[in-house]
Formats: sequence, C-alpha cells, structure tokens
Amino acid sequence: MSDFKSNMWAEEEYVDGSFIMRYRLKNTLFRGKSEFQAVEVVETEGHGKMLFNDSLAMISEKDEFIYHDMITHVPMFVHPNPKNVLVIGGGDGGTAREVLRHPGVEKCVMVEIDKMVCDACYEHIPQTSKVFDNPKLDLKYEDGVAYVKNTKEVFDVILVDSTDPIGPATPLFGEEFYKDVYNCLSEDGIVVSQGESPFFNQDMQKKLLSILKNNFEISSIYNFSNLTYPGGLWSFTFGSKKYHPVKDFKADKVLDSGMEFGYYNEEIHKAAFCLPQFMRKELKDFIKA
Amino acid sequence: MSDFKSNMWAEEEYVDGSFIMRYRLKNTLFRGKSEFQAVEVVETEGHGKMLFNDSLAMISEKDEFIYHDMITHVPMFVHPNPKNVLVIGGGDGGTAREVLRHPGVEKCVMVEIDKMVCDACYEHIPQTSKVFDNPKLDLKYEDGVAYVKNTKEVFDVILVDSTDPIGPATPLFGEEFYKDVYNCLSEDGIVVSQGESPFFNQDMQKKLLSILKNNFEISSIYNFSNLTYPGGLWSFTFGSKKYHPVKDFKADKVLDSGMEFGYYNEEIHKAAFCLPQFMRKELKDFIKA
Repeated sequence: MSDFKSNMWAEEEYVDGSFIMRYRLKNTLFRGKSEFQAVEVVETEGHGKMLFNDSLAMISEKDEFIYHDMITHVPMFVHPNPKNVLVIGGGDGGTAREVLRHPGVEKCVMVEIDKMVCDACYEHIPQTSKVFDNPKLDLKYEDGVAYVKNTKEVFDVILVDSTDPIGPATPLFGEEFYKDVYNCLSEDGIVVSQGESPFFNQDMQKKLLSILKNNFEISSIYNFSNLTYPGGLWSFTFGSKKYHPVKDFKADKVLDSGMEFGYYNEEIHKAAFCLPQFMRKELKDFIKA
Repeated sequence: MSDFKSNMWAEEEYVDGSFIMRYRLKNTLFRGKSEFQAVEVVETEGHGKMLFNDSLAMISEKDEFIYHDMITHVPMFVHPNPKNVLVIGGGDGGTAREVLRHPGVEKCVMVEIDKMVCDACYEHIPQTSKVFDNPKLDLKYEDGVAYVKNTKEVFDVILVDSTDPIGPATPLFGEEFYKDVYNCLSEDGIVVSQGESPFFNQDMQKKLLSILKNNFEISSIYNFSNLTYPGGLWSFTFGSKKYHPVKDFKADKVLDSGMEFGYYNEEIHKAAFCLPQFMRKELKDFIKA
C-alpha cells in the first residue's frame, strides 16, 4: 500500500504488482496491527468506507452487498430450512447480517480470529457491523480451524468468509479443515467458501474444489461480479451433503420470501452456476453435481 | 494517463478520478494523435499488449476474448442464418475476427472512423487485427453514423463496437443513429451495442435501452465480466426486429457448430440475460422482450 502512507490513495497490488487498483482517500479512520495482520479502515471518494487487511481490499460500502448476498443467500435458499448457521471469518459482519435476515434462523455463530477487525468495523462501518448487537448472533473471537475441530454443535449451513490463502487464513484452504467442516454439518448440510478469482487463482480453485469433491457428495462453484476484487469476476465454492445447488433450488421460495436484495434474485441464483468456457473447461473434472 | 508519460504505468481513471486502474509497462509501442483521438499501444507486464484511446483502455491481449466473444456470438447464434454483418467501430479487429469464424457469413463490412487505430493494431496487435487480411472483410475508414444513413446494403446483424459516449463515439449513442440502423437491418435483423457499466453508467444504459424500446420490436441487455473495464461487470444492449435473445436461442446450434470459445458457451448465453437485482429493478421498464 505504497501511497497509502501519503494519505492520498489506498491501493491494492495484483498479478505480482503489475496491476494496481487505487482508491482516492478522504480520510484514514483506523490503522492498527493485530497479532494476525495489518488492519485499516479508510474513507474513499468513490467507494465509501473500505476495510483493508494486509493491504488487501476486503469490503467497500459501495459494493459489499454483492459479496454478502452471494455467499449467504445461495446456500440459504438451497437448504430447505436452515436453523443453525456458522460463519467463519467475516469480521466486518456483512455475512452474519444477511444470514440473520432469514426469519427461520435460530442462531448464527460467527467465529472471527481477529478481534481488531470486528472492533474497527463496529466503530467505523456500522453498515455491516451493527449486526453484532443482534441477540441471535454468537460472536466468538477464536481460530475457526480449531473451532470446527472441537465444537459439538451441528450446523445446517457453514459460510467460510475468509481472506486470501496467505497469512491467518491459510489453513482455511486445507483438506483437514474441510473434513472437520463435514463433521459438524448436519446430514443435509452445505458449506460455501470464498473461492478466489477465476482469472488469477485457478490453481487455488482446483485445490479447493478437489477437496470438496473428495469429501462431499456434491461439489460446485459459482460466480459473481463485484467492484473491489481485482478482475471483477469472483467465485464461491459450494460443498453439499444432499442438496444440488440448482436442481434442488426452488425459485418460488425466493419470490415468496418477500426479501429484497441488491444483487441476488432467483434468476441470478441459477445463472451464477453457468461458468464461462475457460472455467468450465479447466474445472469440469472437479465439479460433482 | 498521468504516469503514462513516465513510461512506468498505463492508467485509466474512473468515477471522476477517484478510482484508478494501473498497468505496469514493459514498453510503449505506439503513440499518436489522430484527428479524432489519442491512440496508444503499450505492452504491459500483466495483461499483454493494450490499446488505449483517449486514455481509456479498449482491449488487452489477456482478456479481449471475453468482450469479442460476447458482442459477437450472442446475436450470431440467435439469428438463424446471418450472412451479411456490419461492425461499426471495433478498430482493433477482434469483433470482425469472431464474426468471420462463422462459416455462414458471406461478408463482414467493418466501418471504423479512425484509420490510425487500425494501423496501430495491425502493426502491433496481430492477435486481433490479422483479420484485416481476410478477403471476406470489407474494411472502410468512414464515419459509421454517415455510413448507416447512406448505405443501400442490408445486414442481418449489426455490432456497434464503440468507445464510450465521449469524443468521436458520441453520435453512436443517439436515437437518430438507431433509426438508421433499423432501416439497414434485414426484416429479422439484430443490433448489439457496447452497453457501458452497470455500476457507473446506469443513466446511459437507460438512454440506450429506451431508444431500442422505442424503435425495435425487442429490447434487452446482457452482461459479461472482464478484467480491463473498471468494475469488471460490463454490458451489451440487444435490439431485435423478430428474434428473442433467449426464447429463440437454440443451445444445440452452439454445440453442433464445433466452434471453441474462451468465454461464450450455450449456458453463458442464457445466464448473461439474468440481471442482478439492482439492474433488474432499474431497467425493467426499458426491457421489451
């Protein structure tokens, strides 16, 4: 974040530094270093407030609805009756916020390793973090990897809302973790995980999908487009014990819910699983659906 | 393109300069000023060669297949038998290249106002411009607006592969132009046009769609995701005299064609017309399909 220090720009480097996205700053609201990562909240001219972890853009107020709609509502509308939901990571709160809009949810456990992220967002980005006051939310500052290994709780849906596979999130991209996720999912449970860029991280997508294929009855991947992740196109992986993400999806359930969304709808749900040819070709052997 | 001059970076400003995308340069290959615009071809570290017109990224070698697949193959597979095709703009050649992959096409007329763009691409970006040697291509250096007003030719498909509605492309976003397009389309003809960003240019999308709705039997819009247009998500508008872009589309025609694509396929064709909720809500009154 070279120019970040000058208080002029927040910037994120990509493709080995050959491609950069820069956001003109109005203010720096928070800058800290936890035992896990650098945490920064800034206010930008064009994208509202933004959270950066280790110089990687996590969310912007302008487009966070897209990511949070798509990580949450796709599995929540495939599962017929999700009551207990686990969010791993997601320290800004946006994923838990969307989970708790579903009236059938009785409890949402959110396990975030880095309390500094939650605290900074709670102070500066209420748009995502006001959910921390919701009595149905059980917010734990713990290592998500250890949590799924040790918990006796059973979840219908698990959402892995992680940063990239560097730093504290690295174990969240490993097979051991997904075996534990499988074991604390109900017999018809679903796990959805941040699935990286189809343009830049195809090897990581193959790794994640092959873990899901080896450990779950159904493995798939779906896309969305957002503003703040480089390349625009981004993905989530989908692992499921019973329900197919498209064949078992009922559009009427979305329409009848009366819920309003910014990005998600009953057509986007199905369209998101239609992969561009370069993805279909590379990933077809890793999809079991 | 402030740092462009230092030969370190090519950059494109967006959102009133509050958001910038920067590409690290290896080389500047061409820099000229035509009577219409500044034309620059550079070689970048991460995205291959890129064309910039008036500091706006037009194409990169890394992802031009996406834009060119989606402007071309969507209408070419909706129309049952397109023989005569007109490309307006598209000076890099990528759109004409994809048109002429369809064996049923007898002639592709390409009308580019700025010869400097074609010459610079022909010299430096053969990936898109080698099509200029194809004998089925009739390449004219003329004003596309005047061309559709005056031509006696009739086309099955017209592709408006334009820059943004500033500078030389401005009249390509006006009603007068689309009335002339209608008149030189066959009785079952289709026009597809570069449709700007759903995030940044919704007013322009409404304007384009309302022109299509007022002048064509069917008006619609579809999306794709690419790397080099800010925000990733981008769109094309679809105007048609007879054929519906989804209901009259036959997936088997794509599968039976034996053609291979980088982005397009029979699933993406339909998925592209499924709009995110924020687009569906804003644009639904402008879609006639």
